Amino acid sequence: MNADLLITGISQLVTAQGSGAKHGAAMRELHVVERAAIAISNSRILWMGREHDWKGDTLASVDVGDRAVVPGLIDPHTHAVWAGDRLADFDARTSGETYEAILAAGGGIRRTIRATAAATKDELLSLAEPRIRALLRSGATTIEVKSGYGFTPTVEIAMLEVIQTLAARTPASLLPTLLIHIPPSDIAERSRYIAEICTELIPEVARRKLATAVDIFVEKEAWHADEAALVLQSAKQHGLAVKLHTEQFQRIGGLELGVEMSALSVDHLEACSPDQLATFATSSTIATILPGVSLHLGIPAAPGRQLIDAGAAVAVGTDLNPGSSPLFSTAAALALAVRLNGLTAQEALVAGTVNAAHALGLADAGRLEVGLQADFLVLEGSDWRELVYTLGGNPVREVWIRGERLEV
Amino acid sequence: MNADLLITGISQLVTAQGSGAKHGAAMRELHVVERAAIAISNSRILWMGREHDWKGDTLASVDVGDRAVVPGLIDPHTHAVWAGDRLADFDARTSGETYEAILAAGGGIRRTIRATAAATKDELLSLAEPRIRALLRSGATTIEVKSGYGFTPTVEIAMLEVIQTLAARTPASLLPTLLIHIPPSDIAERSRYIAEICTELIPEVARRKLATAVDIFVEKEAWHADEAALVLQSAKQHGLAVKLHTEQFQRIGGLELGVEMSALSVDHLEACSPDQLATFATSSTIATILPGVSLHLGIPAAPGRQLIDAGAAVAVGTDLNPGSSPLFSTAAALALAVRLNGLTAQEALVAGTVNAAHALGLADAGRLEVGLQADFLVLEGSDWRELVYTLGGNPVREVWIRGERLEV
Repeated sequence: MNADLLITGISQLVTAQGSGAKHGAAMRELHVVERAAIAISNSRILWMGREHDWKGDTLASVDVGDRAVVPGLIDPHTHAVWAGDRLADFDARTSGETYEAILAAGGGIRRTIRATAAATKDELLSLAEPRIRALLRSGATTIEVKSGYGFTPTVEIAMLEVIQTLAARTPASLLPTLLIHIPPSDIAERSRYIAEICTELIPEVARRKLATAVDIFVEKEAWHADEAALVLQSAKQHGLAVKLHTEQFQRIGGLELGVEMSALSVDHLEACSPDQLATFATSSTIATILPGVSLHLGIPAAPGRQLIDAGAAVAVGTDLNPGSSPLFSTAAALALAVRLNGLTAQEALVAGTVNAAHALGLADAGRLEVGLQADFLVLEGSDWRELVYTLGGNPVREVWIRGERLEV
Repeated sequence: MNADLLITGISQLVTAQGSGAKHGAAMRELHVVERAAIAISNSRILWMGREHDWKGDTLASVDVGDRAVVPGLIDPHTHAVWAGDRLADFDARTSGETYEAILAAGGGIRRTIRATAAATKDELLSLAEPRIRALLRSGATTIEVKSGYGFTPTVEIAMLEVIQTLAARTPASLLPTLLIHIPPSDIAERSRYIAEICTELIPEVARRKLATAVDIFVEKEAWHADEAALVLQSAKQHGLAVKLHTEQFQRIGGLELGVEMSALSVDHLEACSPDQLATFATSSTIATILPGVSLHLGIPAAPGRQLIDAGAAVAVGTDLNPGSSPLFSTAAALALAVRLNGLTAQEALVAGTVNAAHALGLADAGRLEVGLQADFLVLEGSDWRELVYTLGGNPVREVWIRGERLEV
């Protein structure tokens, strides 16, 4: 065997194994090889195993110095493109003002929508680039990025074009999602807007391949489940995958709609009820939880422990956004999932790698395996659990994508 | 006026003003100068104000590029020196094992005590240095470091010597505290150990100036208030300041003992009762809260909001330690205090600067003022509130100590 590069000095090589999302107890099954090496050829993993078992030749080698290696993380839920800030809202909320009062004063999500619509594409790009870089530094080699602050089809398209340019400028894999976020405030306008989404926006996005999935925010104050069904049906007819923001503030039925429509994932779930949990056990739909929101807004955490115990395949993401989750680290999202959602370290790693990949429809990402793209992290420590144990610091020392170490 | 260096391009210069700890509503009073500059001479602040008001000469100038500047943070409570790790405990606890079962299986704090006692001073140093560097990177220019994993006077002294060497090797100011942590398991040994502490350990520490304060852990499973009183009296007799870990798991009376003895601070307070809060209003004793512990262990957060409303001067620290708070960022401790303890952004900044300085007996640190040492942070953003708003990333771009920018 001839490798381009041999990575040695790996104290622990840690990965989930086998294709398919990991449900329930399978989320605790990790494959660990001690004193390991990885041989890379053509950006892919040519061989991996115990270092002393490598018998091939290599053009070059890198010793990572007795450190743990895990797959590159997958962040399955971000809103990394926005303009303006929400610091005034943050101040108001931490000073005791209610969400309703902030919204009434012109704050909240509509503040971000106004600022994003007013920004040029170049401004949006230069604001988003350091955010993507921060996620990358924290270990995310594949990152989903949603539109959704556009409000009008024109601005939604512009946001997706910004994500397309971002994707070309970063070594990370970016997956764009068209998010149908907030309905018009005029109730009479809702059905007209839905029709425009289904007959104009989604067809254009599909034709121009500007997104791989369509997401919709199902909530009492946002879209209702029957409206979501129309939008997601249109998405599927145009060959796009679907996903939902749902059960964030109350039980609303988006969870069941998502499972019924074979959504890639239903996300949030802070307010789902015990009897809803088993829905995921026999479904391919991933339950994506977002602990940053619980920390930032002080709302209850999604029942991660109970979801896994009920057989769900759980993924974790940052939900990076200015209003409800200014969390700029994918590794920190996993660390928070252990503290706030009751995951074990093993479950958190699976939630942030192979299950997060499935939440994006990627069957061949989020794990280390011969033949797959060599996307991996060298951690600071020799024990991989430091990835989720460490709070406040960055446990990721090196980020490798396609067999190359990034300068981040 | 002749300056060595002029710092320009400061979007906001933000600091508490005036000596003295800030109690209650005074914790929300910040002095903000927009488009500011700082002139430095001999490591100290020679002048500060609006940039266009500077009329002096300077040998050199640095433009920080429209970014906010705040005082260097003060971390008033860390256990940054330890050996071994607590990953097995972390795994056991997140898998549902009880604290008692972990302790019975040889885990918990006694695991750290064994590993620390078995380590050489060089090992302890090389383990602690990157932790101090991480705190420094996160904005802490003054850091308290406790002994307390020694268990025997000999190892406690060795830990303090390690802290002394650490202090000489870092540009941060390190303040060493002798911590009397865990009593002998044999009840009959307790009074003998207390006598040894009072007649041998404390006198030696005072004579050799190995610590500036003595701290003791008052808890049902640790030392009782009457034992603490003996130790702290001895400390005061030897000219050392005193502080306590108390009211962490239940109301235990260490809070009142601390206030009565004019302790610099009483720390933790997760389990203090509403009627205890007013004790701080008329006292110089700082109420130090440690949100990392609440996040990591899932215990209730200290009532930061209620303490401030009752007139207390609150400080915030990381409590960096392997068992209950693996939090490697002082800025993140402030960000958590907003989310978990109900502080506003303004209160969090005061808690992490001037009030934290007072928790260490420092009247002239933690604020920007003519004549004081030029320890400050240049933040990534132009709005200082990003310091406590940002989660997961590092909001600190540059750390300046004594008028010099560090390479960290």
